[in-house]
Amino acid sequence: MTVTPVAFPDPPLLNSAGVHQPWALRAIVQVRSADGAVGLGETYGDAPHLSLLTRAAAALKNVDIFDLSGLVRTVARAIGAVDVPDRHGLTGGSTTAKTLAKVVAPFEVALLDLQGQAIGRPVHDLLGGKVRDRVPFSAYLFYKWAGHPGAAPDGWGPALDPDGIVAQARTLIDRYGFQSIKLKGGVFPPDEEIAAIRALRDAFSGLPLRLDPNAAWTPETSVKVAEQTDGLLEYLEDPTGGLSGMAEVAALAPMPLATNMCVVAFADLPEAVRRNAVQVVLADHHYWGGLRACAELAAICRTWGIGVSMHSNSHLGISLAAMVHLAASTPVLTYAADTHTPWQDGVDVVADPLPITGGAVTVPDRPGLGVTLDQDALARLHENYLRCGITERDDTTYRQRFEPGYVKRRPRW
Amino acid sequence: MTVTPVAFPDPPLLNSAGVHQPWALRAIVQVRSADGAVGLGETYGDAPHLSLLTRAAAALKNVDIFDLSGLVRTVARAIGAVDVPDRHGLTGGSTTAKTLAKVVAPFEVALLDLQGQAIGRPVHDLLGGKVRDRVPFSAYLFYKWAGHPGAAPDGWGPALDPDGIVAQARTLIDRYGFQSIKLKGGVFPPDEEIAAIRALRDAFSGLPLRLDPNAAWTPETSVKVAEQTDGLLEYLEDPTGGLSGMAEVAALAPMPLATNMCVVAFADLPEAVRRNAVQVVLADHHYWGGLRACAELAAICRTWGIGVSMHSNSHLGISLAAMVHLAASTPVLTYAADTHTPWQDGVDVVADPLPITGGAVTVPDRPGLGVTLDQDALARLHENYLRCGITERDDTTYRQRFEPGYVKRRPRW
Repeated sequence: MTVTPVAFPDPPLLNSAGVHQPWALRAIVQVRSADGAVGLGETYGDAPHLSLLTRAAAALKNVDIFDLSGLVRTVARAIGAVDVPDRHGLTGGSTTAKTLAKVVAPFEVALLDLQGQAIGRPVHDLLGGKVRDRVPFSAYLFYKWAGHPGAAPDGWGPALDPDGIVAQARTLIDRYGFQSIKLKGGVFPPDEEIAAIRALRDAFSGLPLRLDPNAAWTPETSVKVAEQTDGLLEYLEDPTGGLSGMAEVAALAPMPLATNMCVVAFADLPEAVRRNAVQVVLADHHYWGGLRACAELAAICRTWGIGVSMHSNSHLGISLAAMVHLAASTPVLTYAADTHTPWQDGVDVVADPLPITGGAVTVPDRPGLGVTLDQDALARLHENYLRCGITERDDTTYRQRFEPGYVKRRPRW
Repeated sequence: MTVTPVAFPDPPLLNSAGVHQPWALRAIVQVRSADGAVGLGETYGDAPHLSLLTRAAAALKNVDIFDLSGLVRTVARAIGAVDVPDRHGLTGGSTTAKTLAKVVAPFEVALLDLQGQAIGRPVHDLLGGKVRDRVPFSAYLFYKWAGHPGAAPDGWGPALDPDGIVAQARTLIDRYGFQSIKLKGGVFPPDEEIAAIRALRDAFSGLPLRLDPNAAWTPETSVKVAEQTDGLLEYLEDPTGGLSGMAEVAALAPMPLATNMCVVAFADLPEAVRRNAVQVVLADHHYWGGLRACAELAAICRTWGIGVSMHSNSHLGISLAAMVHLAASTPVLTYAADTHTPWQDGVDVVADPLPITGGAVTVPDRPGLGVTLDQDALARLHENYLRCGITERDDTTYRQRFEPGYVKRRPRW
């Protein structure tokens, strides 16, 4: 069991919590089996989480790779009842159950990787078998600065208005062939973001569009935006915070509401269903507790007729592979998944990242996850971590460094 | 792929649909892999179901044992959109989805058995790993005649009043060590069955009791019985038919209501949850679509705080093994499971049936299901099937043969 924190360059992407810091953090989990095989997992690299991962790893020596129930029990005992919130709050509130799920997830993925390698089967076969050969992803657009303040402009250019967003979409689509588009909003007043959506609609007439302001709006503003984007959006994601507000908006919005902020754990589902607060849930194995937990979530969504899409934070190639296996074996996951992959500019810890072409990843049929660690790259990214001086993601404080008056406010409009 | 119908002697057990015929029918599924291993499944043996099984088996040649999603698609294509109801109606209504689930289930179990054998792991490891080493079962009491009319009395003796029921419980508990008791009711007027429950409470003071009249009562009667058995029952099972009636009773009953009649498919769950109609669901992999489908059901029940128990029809040792692996790997399945095993008097198609001792089955850790077919026994039981003259379970018509005035009426009281 090895847990290695890593850092990789991240562009100044804006959101309702602030702006991405120059380095994104992740933790890479390696589980080595008795016969020398290595199972891989990937998760958040924030210091409080890292400390729990380390405690869990120490308790997991000699774990049976097939005993996934035992994994949960062992991790629960190792970390105790602890609640570690994210500072950015971009994936909703936290609880002890969600904290446990976040610590379990990378180990579960690593054990599934090892199971697959041991029996010569891809991970999607351990999840019931693939129902699709290609997993589509969406172009994930961000308002962004030209570069990190004080550094040279990055290769992406600024995107602070509709023209910049359309140009960014064109770049992403040219490079990856994406066939649906998501705009991270909550950065500018709603009218400007609606204008960006209209510009995207004009520029890419056939492609489904989504807008995600990360709860930057009141229910009233959300309803107004929903009315003004009627016919433009495949779904509107987390316009406002909390199940109550979302239910209020859902009752009036002409399009489905999606969330990865107000339904982030099993305990959120009963109320969400009762109030019909959301019509699409964005699954994320990193905080739902692993790939099998997401399959359970999908079964619930299927039963209640809720759509399933997939959420992403900044991540590397192990997480991409895990997401692909999950999506491949989840019949109801019919929306293109989110991914930050393009923003990592090819930096990775795996030697053989799954390529996105034609807007999709071809599902690998190799044993396990189908990706292998590049130990040199891991060492370099770990070196980054040690030198970068960032130990916890904090988009707000970073933005305040350059805009002293900036305050994170949700709702803001 | 082989599907073999079998029949085995069954005592005259009474229920709200009539009385068990002298022969119970099952179908045994064998899936032979390229390397000669045999995976086992077991399901209902009624003619209409058998014909669908045969069509499915023909379509499933060369199936990949890990492709469980492909299994469902192939079976769905092979049988088409068909709805095959049970005559007895003891497991609720039927739909095309439930019919498909019933046909898929024995093949899914057989493939999981093969998977386990191929990788040297018990089936419970394929379901996430066991959370318990022993799976408890309940003593399943039935009102019964002394023997089938025209035949010699069977070894069990009659049970037509509280004394008979208590004696039967004592026999079952002496032989198997059961630590909870379920009485199949719906046979006599409610007062007589309440008297039997009181007699059981007096005779077995520490053991949880359940009563299952299979929807023989109106909601009004159900509420009265619930009030009169307050403090006596662990749960009251299917007192009345339909989600509406169950919700009405649940609102007033002092104990949890359980069901294997009004929640029998995923499509039933949203309304059941919305109306809080049931507090315990009895899972049954034979009609929910297999072991993995029941794991999904369990995840739903866990999320909504609904209890999980396990239903049984007359079955043999393959089904018992499948039930044990499922229960072993399902954390929320905290109630003792039902089983008809004692009523089969040791008749089985497996050479190594899992023994019930101390009221529980020790979970086998051998690869696959952990039971092997006794080919001679299979041949004998198939011979029974060919000679017994019964091709479909029909408790009502059989009872009418001896009580011409008998009419199946639900509710009756």
